[in-house]
Amino acid sequence: MNAPVSLAAIVERHAADVEARLVAALASDSVLDVASRYHLATGGKRLRALLPIWLGTNLGGDPEAAIPLGLGIELLHNATLVHDDLQDGDRTRRGEPTVWTVWGDAQAINVGNHLFFVGVDHLARSGADAAFLSRAARVMIDVVGGQALEFQLQLPADHRDHVGATVAGWERMARGKTAALFALCAEAGALSAGADPGERARAAAFGSDVGLLFQLQDDLLDLVGDKGRGETATDIAEGKISYPVAWAKENAGEAARMRLMAIIRTPREVTSRAMVEEALGILRDVGAIDAAARRIGDMWRELRESRYDALLPGLVERVLEPVRHALPA
Amino acid sequence: MNAPVSLAAIVERHAADVEARLVAALASDSVLDVASRYHLATGGKRLRALLPIWLGTNLGGDPEAAIPLGLGIELLHNATLVHDDLQDGDRTRRGEPTVWTVWGDAQAINVGNHLFFVGVDHLARSGADAAFLSRAARVMIDVVGGQALEFQLQLPADHRDHVGATVAGWERMARGKTAALFALCAEAGALSAGADPGERARAAAFGSDVGLLFQLQDDLLDLVGDKGRGETATDIAEGKISYPVAWAKENAGEAARMRLMAIIRTPREVTSRAMVEEALGILRDVGAIDAAARRIGDMWRELRESRYDALLPGLVERVLEPVRHALPA
Repeated sequence: MNAPVSLAAIVERHAADVEARLVAALASDSVLDVASRYHLATGGKRLRALLPIWLGTNLGGDPEAAIPLGLGIELLHNATLVHDDLQDGDRTRRGEPTVWTVWGDAQAINVGNHLFFVGVDHLARSGADAAFLSRAARVMIDVVGGQALEFQLQLPADHRDHVGATVAGWERMARGKTAALFALCAEAGALSAGADPGERARAAAFGSDVGLLFQLQDDLLDLVGDKGRGETATDIAEGKISYPVAWAKENAGEAARMRLMAIIRTPREVTSRAMVEEALGILRDVGAIDAAARRIGDMWRELRESRYDALLPGLVERVLEPVRHALPA
Repeated sequence: MNAPVSLAAIVERHAADVEARLVAALASDSVLDVASRYHLATGGKRLRALLPIWLGTNLGGDPEAAIPLGLGIELLHNATLVHDDLQDGDRTRRGEPTVWTVWGDAQAINVGNHLFFVGVDHLARSGADAAFLSRAARVMIDVVGGQALEFQLQLPADHRDHVGATVAGWERMARGKTAALFALCAEAGALSAGADPGERARAAAFGSDVGLLFQLQDDLLDLVGDKGRGETATDIAEGKISYPVAWAKENAGEAARMRLMAIIRTPREVTSRAMVEEALGILRDVGAIDAAARRIGDMWRELRESRYDALLPGLVERVLEPVRHALPA
């Protein structure tokens, strides 16, 4: 894989086409298509559509073979976002009102379900065989399982469904919620290039690690960056167990840990800005922010050992720019 | 199709196996499998699992070829039930607390999504090709579209998403929400028997009509029977546009129509039992209950003309017994 095609080049060549095809897949005047297009118009990098094209192109495949797979996975991803916004009670996404605030809870569930099956239909019509569709379904089972685990990590220890908010628990959640779909993207790219099962499995492992890195970045940016919701640290207010929180829970002294978790477990509507700032201060003081940056560095070193290390500079440029400082040379 | 295998015989032979396989498909101790098994244990006739076996057997197929398809469709159906209960605010199903009341709204969304993809995985591993999976996805798009339409029919005329609560609107909703999945069941049965595309299309049309009949029966039983929720006419309290309500809205005099729709559109929590009884009285007085029975008779006559008329006595026995009196000889 010399002189790889960069992700930027793939974006340049295919992003507009991908966008047009997503909109064309949801073109009717039904409320579900209207709401789906509204959701898509709130933005997004369409990474799940572009990654299969990128991987496939670099493995010698025809982009046209990868595009329907990418569109299908992107639609599945957006289905989960519509449901997520409702589940988390998020009223805005990138500054725009979320689907459930415009169309109500019941229709938001339908909009997500609609996007699921438009996505499945794209995969089914992509030319992929039933075995790949089974693989995609099992990936979605992992994604939904990760989302379920995300809520379980937030439950108090005496709750029936409690799962310990450990670093291992966080990783299990993130491998499902985020990394599984990245793995499917990479595998779809390999499939589109006619790769053998061994190559497909290596691509999936690479994709999963990229996904975990992406989730680590997302967790870190929520605390110290701007995800476009107009405020930082919404994860803390929402009670989410991000990597830094899980790390602090395992590694901080008792007083800091107790105070941090008390803030995390305070219901969102009574969590004050001062409490969020206090939690941020604790995370910084106990070294949890640094630990997240270190873990990003560790993941990066692992990826450098992979079959696809030639592709990594392209990833930094388009996906991991915000944490570039944490990536070892 | 002489001496057909009755649906009762299929139930006798396969119901226990179907039940065991459904539970085995959801066997882990994850919260999503636990909640899915809990939901299944609230009961159900597993019609969507049994219909493909029944059709397939009568077309000369091997039941083992139909069973994975039936299981997949049954799982998809149960996914929609878990979401429906949340969307409708139904606190009990067949006397048991619904999933959302036990695990909360966010996890109920995840449980439904889990069942969707366990279902898709079953279809993908059934031996069916990608074209059938695309067909199944498009059926699910119709199902979700019907559910979206169900809410739109309930909206006041000045609402952006309002759809007129006409008989035609009701039929469009029911052809999606209920009939589409029955069509898929019948088509899956034909597929499992190696039927050609023409036979598959005829089976699907038969299944769709059976589904519409089933929805008419469901609408009627809600008003005059007992669906096992411990009270009648929950559709009226929930504001649903059932067939009799849509018929009355088109055919009743203005005073009766205005009063009926005022009750239907009263929020559930302020709809008194007396108001429900009043609406029931209006529906009886304007002839809407009789009209529903007549429509059931008309549908039945159409089915008698179909390729599968030899199967109809078996349907009456296991599915349509409650409206037997409305079926012309």
